[in-house]
Amino acid sequence: MNFPMISRILGWMMVFEAGFMAPSGIIAGIYKEPDVIWLGVSMAICLAVGAAFILLSRPKSRRIYAREGAVICALVWFLYSFFGGLPFVFSGYVPSLVDAMFETASGFTTTGASIIKDVEALPHWLLWWRSFTHWVGGMGILVFVMAIIPLASGGSAMFLMRAESPGPSVKKLVPKTSQTAGLLYKMYFGLTIAQLLFLFAGKMPWFDAFCITFGSAGTGGFSVLNTGCATYTIYQQVVITVFMILFGTNFSVYYLIISGHIKEVPKVSEAVTYYAIIAVAIGLITFNIRGDYSSTAIALKDAAFQVGSIITTTGYSTTDFNLWPSFSKWILVLLMFIGACAGSTGGGIKVSRVQVAFKTIVKELDTAIHPNNVRKIKYDGKPLAHAVLRGINVFIVAYFMVFGLSVLLVSIDGFDMETNFTAVAATLNNIGPGLSKVGPASNFSCYGPFATGVLIFDMIAGRLEILPVLILFSVHTWRDGDVWSRPGRVHLHGKKLDVDDEGII
Amino acid sequence: MNFPMISRILGWMMVFEAGFMAPSGIIAGIYKEPDVIWLGVSMAICLAVGAAFILLSRPKSRRIYAREGAVICALVWFLYSFFGGLPFVFSGYVPSLVDAMFETASGFTTTGASIIKDVEALPHWLLWWRSFTHWVGGMGILVFVMAIIPLASGGSAMFLMRAESPGPSVKKLVPKTSQTAGLLYKMYFGLTIAQLLFLFAGKMPWFDAFCITFGSAGTGGFSVLNTGCATYTIYQQVVITVFMILFGTNFSVYYLIISGHIKEVPKVSEAVTYYAIIAVAIGLITFNIRGDYSSTAIALKDAAFQVGSIITTTGYSTTDFNLWPSFSKWILVLLMFIGACAGSTGGGIKVSRVQVAFKTIVKELDTAIHPNNVRKIKYDGKPLAHAVLRGINVFIVAYFMVFGLSVLLVSIDGFDMETNFTAVAATLNNIGPGLSKVGPASNFSCYGPFATGVLIFDMIAGRLEILPVLILFSVHTWRDGDVWSRPGRVHLHGKKLDVDDEGII
Repeated sequence: MNFPMISRILGWMMVFEAGFMAPSGIIAGIYKEPDVIWLGVSMAICLAVGAAFILLSRPKSRRIYAREGAVICALVWFLYSFFGGLPFVFSGYVPSLVDAMFETASGFTTTGASIIKDVEALPHWLLWWRSFTHWVGGMGILVFVMAIIPLASGGSAMFLMRAESPGPSVKKLVPKTSQTAGLLYKMYFGLTIAQLLFLFAGKMPWFDAFCITFGSAGTGGFSVLNTGCATYTIYQQVVITVFMILFGTNFSVYYLIISGHIKEVPKVSEAVTYYAIIAVAIGLITFNIRGDYSSTAIALKDAAFQVGSIITTTGYSTTDFNLWPSFSKWILVLLMFIGACAGSTGGGIKVSRVQVAFKTIVKELDTAIHPNNVRKIKYDGKPLAHAVLRGINVFIVAYFMVFGLSVLLVSIDGFDMETNFTAVAATLNNIGPGLSKVGPASNFSCYGPFATGVLIFDMIAGRLEILPVLILFSVHTWRDGDVWSRPGRVHLHGKKLDVDDEGII
Repeated sequence: MNFPMISRILGWMMVFEAGFMAPSGIIAGIYKEPDVIWLGVSMAICLAVGAAFILLSRPKSRRIYAREGAVICALVWFLYSFFGGLPFVFSGYVPSLVDAMFETASGFTTTGASIIKDVEALPHWLLWWRSFTHWVGGMGILVFVMAIIPLASGGSAMFLMRAESPGPSVKKLVPKTSQTAGLLYKMYFGLTIAQLLFLFAGKMPWFDAFCITFGSAGTGGFSVLNTGCATYTIYQQVVITVFMILFGTNFSVYYLIISGHIKEVPKVSEAVTYYAIIAVAIGLITFNIRGDYSSTAIALKDAAFQVGSIITTTGYSTTDFNLWPSFSKWILVLLMFIGACAGSTGGGIKVSRVQVAFKTIVKELDTAIHPNNVRKIKYDGKPLAHAVLRGINVFIVAYFMVFGLSVLLVSIDGFDMETNFTAVAATLNNIGPGLSKVGPASNFSCYGPFATGVLIFDMIAGRLEILPVLILFSVHTWRDGDVWSRPGRVHLHGKKLDVDDEGII
């Protein structure tokens, strides 16, 4: 384990967290809010901790491997949630440290679940910080920093990116990891600007427009009004709907478009399936709820907003869907689990994993009928590697285990099953609101510190797709020698083996 | 597809269903119940249909393969549920055919979910038939018949047994399939007699003793009193608890004991894990509910009964556990999913599958930390074949997909989420009562015909562990040529290949 290198990267990440807080200071200046002093104190703490981490480490090698990548990634997300919560605590708006950590973890992981009962009571600078964490967390904290400075040497950077990026396998758009990170952020930035312009055109107040855009871009879901998005105009709601769905799309689609391969877009089966699921869900829900609405058009608007909001795991709401019929509610629960595309800013199991899982079932049936059929499972025309298939199946199984255990731990607080079940579903899938006591018209403040801690774990485990967090808490990670962490040649059962650039022998 | 052979086996199975109904006639004689005439009519119909199936088929080959095995097995279970429901309909106690089919499917699949509001109003012969279906379904309908007559030639019988037996892989206890089937039924019979004797010793009325024993042996759960098992004495409840848990144990444990290998029993890790889970669950629930009981001993008794009843998927109740705190309720929900041991009469995902799934997660973590680790996953000291591992993962994924879609379809009736969620959990896992509107103090009569149909499908899919039912409804099964169904030599990509005794090349 390359501890000095871990310390060094964590240090730089803390320095960047202070940097991420800076824009909130400008907002405080505009609105003349004196309690921004607590933001300054929090930034100073982040800088001091970061500097200590950097100065105390003397890495002999700048190389890290899969294990360090996962550990760094998980630690960064826990640290960011802790230190990012300080402004809430110091300024007194969220007195409990656990609650503040929940709110910040919810921000960075783009969950959007809140423990704040009256968001309109917060000063603008704090609302901005809260929403800005969504934008930073959406595309990835490490990915952002890697786009700016080289955190680790060449091949090593891939391990950081792999641990943080959603989806069953990480495709580099261009050969170099840092260039891929930069390209992703350029597309992310472009879409963000586009949404801002559309909202400005619809005369949304500029502060709301920024915060709502941060929330849709990261598929987060924090809003700046107690009514969520219900009071915005229909035009504004439609713009938000469209952009939520766009941010939940696999970004390789945008890369194909800007690199002039627009004809290849329909071949990205994940995106096609994603839009098909959205269309079917909107149709079914509109049909189911139309009786409760004055017109089918308004029902369609609310259904589209809610489907877009839930499948992308954003979590904005224009209506209290907790009051919808149970058929529509269960569709939303299923969408919570399916989630958005891999390679997007959304959470959940991901459309491509669900597709591949479905293919493995069809193949298993086929094998049962024709025992000698050895056809490989293909995805987008290419046969899938055994390791990817296994990884997907194991992920889904691990996912349901974490899910079941979390509901058990959370239910110690004694709430009803619908509350506990959807609270875990909403945090593990990074959505935001659940149903019943944690529905869109309520918030997560009902849970005690222990349950809140479990839900913080779930948000970060969900955002990092479980494995890195399990690795962080696994005894194996810390107990074993560092034979696998050394570059060059290692000995295995008496044989000399080469460790290549990716740390794989 | 060997249609004549399918027809022939189905025909014999119908004849046997008439035979299974016969003992109810004796009960009617003892209690002098004249409406037993409708039992006679139902038996005559079964015999007539069976005879037609047998006489109209002229099999050229007595050989069947995996595909036919799965199709026959799924069809037998649907036919048994349909024709077994006729006595309920004809006698007028359950006027709706769908409801009668639900009740019978619930019986044969050992679910124990009921749509009958007042069971004490039924005549004894009908109560006996209802409980006897549990006993027949518990160890397997086809397995029972195979123990008596050879339904298919040598190797072919294995395909029938494989489709019907619970668990990730079917181990033959002895080399011949029919001998294994016979041995299983002997042990099943022995345990049944033992429970009867213990209940007689506790002065339970003989009719109740028989019906309750059928329900525990098959891990079914139909009772003959409206109060379930609440009015039985503490001794009787303890006997039922112990035997439910014994019937949920992997039967290979009993084979080890009777064949003199008692020292090997602790090496059957599934059984050890099963008892460990039971102990932990009882401990946690007793601790959680002790405040609501007059003494910890009574709390322990109810906790043990309910844990035994739910993990074995029997579904008896001595108390309305719907009123327990949500922590205890969620433990029961988790036990519903885990289920009993493979190779027992219980349902659910099965302890061994959960164990292996857990091992695959640990291995995935290990591989992430040490990319070159190629250690095989072992179970009970033996490395697991890739196909078994894949089968387990695919089963779990398919299971959750069927689960999610079933809840969606059932929720059309508009009940709350806890009702719909646990109704599907209770039927797919063959347990019986769920929570809320389908809790132990209520029944499934609230659902309409469509939702009832979905739940019938879930019960049979759960009992046959999904794959055979999916094969029955798969287009592939019926569309493709029969190249794989022919014995001898087949051509594959221009090469001649041998089809061995098991139909596998």
